[in-house]
Amino acid sequence: MKLGRVTATGPDGPDTRLVGVLPDEGVVVDLAVAERLRLTRAGADPVAARRIAAALFPPSMAAAIGGGPAFTDAAGRALAEPPDEAVSKLDAVTWATPIDPLVVRDCSAFERHLLNAHARGKKPVPEEFYRAPVYYKMSPATLIPGGTEVPWPFGCRFMDYELEVGLVIGRPALNVRPEDARELLFGVTVMNDFSARDLQAREMSAGLGPAKGKDFATAIGPWIATIDELDPDDLEMIARVNGEEWSRGSTASMMWTIDEIIAYASTTETLTTGELIGTGTVGSGSGLELYKKLQPGDVVELEVAGIGSIANPIGHPPEDGWRPSPKTPSEGKGG
Amino acid sequence: MKLGRVTATGPDGPDTRLVGVLPDEGVVVDLAVAERLRLTRAGADPVAARRIAAALFPPSMAAAIGGGPAFTDAAGRALAEPPDEAVSKLDAVTWATPIDPLVVRDCSAFERHLLNAHARGKKPVPEEFYRAPVYYKMSPATLIPGGTEVPWPFGCRFMDYELEVGLVIGRPALNVRPEDARELLFGVTVMNDFSARDLQAREMSAGLGPAKGKDFATAIGPWIATIDELDPDDLEMIARVNGEEWSRGSTASMMWTIDEIIAYASTTETLTTGELIGTGTVGSGSGLELYKKLQPGDVVELEVAGIGSIANPIGHPPEDGWRPSPKTPSEGKGG
Repeated sequence: MKLGRVTATGPDGPDTRLVGVLPDEGVVVDLAVAERLRLTRAGADPVAARRIAAALFPPSMAAAIGGGPAFTDAAGRALAEPPDEAVSKLDAVTWATPIDPLVVRDCSAFERHLLNAHARGKKPVPEEFYRAPVYYKMSPATLIPGGTEVPWPFGCRFMDYELEVGLVIGRPALNVRPEDARELLFGVTVMNDFSARDLQAREMSAGLGPAKGKDFATAIGPWIATIDELDPDDLEMIARVNGEEWSRGSTASMMWTIDEIIAYASTTETLTTGELIGTGTVGSGSGLELYKKLQPGDVVELEVAGIGSIANPIGHPPEDGWRPSPKTPSEGKGG
Repeated sequence: MKLGRVTATGPDGPDTRLVGVLPDEGVVVDLAVAERLRLTRAGADPVAARRIAAALFPPSMAAAIGGGPAFTDAAGRALAEPPDEAVSKLDAVTWATPIDPLVVRDCSAFERHLLNAHARGKKPVPEEFYRAPVYYKMSPATLIPGGTEVPWPFGCRFMDYELEVGLVIGRPALNVRPEDARELLFGVTVMNDFSARDLQAREMSAGLGPAKGKDFATAIGPWIATIDELDPDDLEMIARVNGEEWSRGSTASMMWTIDEIIAYASTTETLTTGELIGTGTVGSGSGLELYKKLQPGDVVELEVAGIGSIANPIGHPPEDGWRPSPKTPSEGKGG
């Protein structure tokens, strides 16, 4: 199945709705509407049908996935026989992010990206990247869907994209071993970890990892492809800028496997339902590696075979902004 | 006001309830119960009163704070005249984390901590710490309340605490300047950023910031003190281990001000209601700086004047666990 979220406006303003997607037919199915109608036809009164359908298909995809088979079975039924009232044209909907995770990690599982990126910085790849599928934590608050303009951070001079696959976790788990990790994977989505390279490099010198260099936009979408319908270990990945191909790769070239990534993420802490883990950038999957920079107005499209594609336009630099005034080191006399 | 969350078990299992706290009287007030009774006395029918009270005081403190004055006014009324049915003894409740943030950052605003920590590592403080109130992102999924045992990460040989104050953001804001930042601060809480120093040091060598060295537990609580009842720029902070004082400091010694921290966090991204920003560790507010390590079974108590204190016991190392098998670098032939 392909499951996503769209925004629809009613009398109380915009609402987020769960949809199943039938790309070949060019339609999406509103899952709560389909379930409400099914329940009514089966004898439920309309008010109760609406209440039960809303509980199965809330605005939060993470909460919905938490329903387990109750959710996926109902979604499957809706997509098998979608009632006309629940169907919309795919090109007429306003996409929201397909998942609303509590935690977002981004790994670095492709050795070629590490080699390319560190070669550009004239530095060796730190040994730790070979010892564990290390990650940094992204902000769940700056996820954007395809179509949304990427805000240009104040002061950024090197805007970049990162071609990744996002792994969506299906249920809580703690200290899972790789051989048991695959059953935690609910599905995959396309992920573009937009990066302000100059800001990122400066702040990474402090050792706390990427922050303002990443915390402005990560695009995900267009929907989640559930794991039963593809092989996540062999997905072709393509990036195009203004229609021109810049990057091409595959999850088949991952140094750390998806199972190892999930197992490592679950170490000492419980994975949460709906959390999102980026694979990291595929080799040559960023402008950094290609000695190319994105410009304001560029459109970056990422496509992953078996899932779909998202395209995001790059915004323009703001004219004004605030920068902290540097502090003077006290050389040992600090408070 | 002092506002927190407790866990109460009903016929459907455990529920999270919002409470106001009256520490001098040794009681907490269940805010939804108090509001429900007030509405009923004012003429609402019991079902409607329960519905309205539940909307004002949902299980999520972040969602509740989003109600703005509708929330704080109702909480103030409940605490001014608490009905007997809503009151419990403070020492009889089970605390939950006072806030459920979407985003958690941790800054490094105290120069003395930076100087001490880097001196121990025989390294200078990176210049970036003086250029901006840099932060790393914590996991919202590993926040724990006071009283909860801290899990000991597999392989950790150096367990530590960090004595911090947590800033709770009251409403969304983007690109705020320091002079306008204070009005975004809803309140403050006590924060203990537990750290596995050896794991943290190893993974920070990869440049992606702290991950497994921190992503096992951050304690917050016992409640939020709203900003109208204290001066956050002058709060005494104390850490005790097994009753013995290890650390003492004050927010008065911050190099980066609270206003600068909030302004920087809001740069290029919209702060979310209820998000949590740690000040970073006060000078000498960690074992790392004191050449001391925590041991299994130790109890770490943090106290911040004007807020309260939280105490967390340290768990025992697990006997077994999974570690990734290192990969062999391909020296340029990576996939």
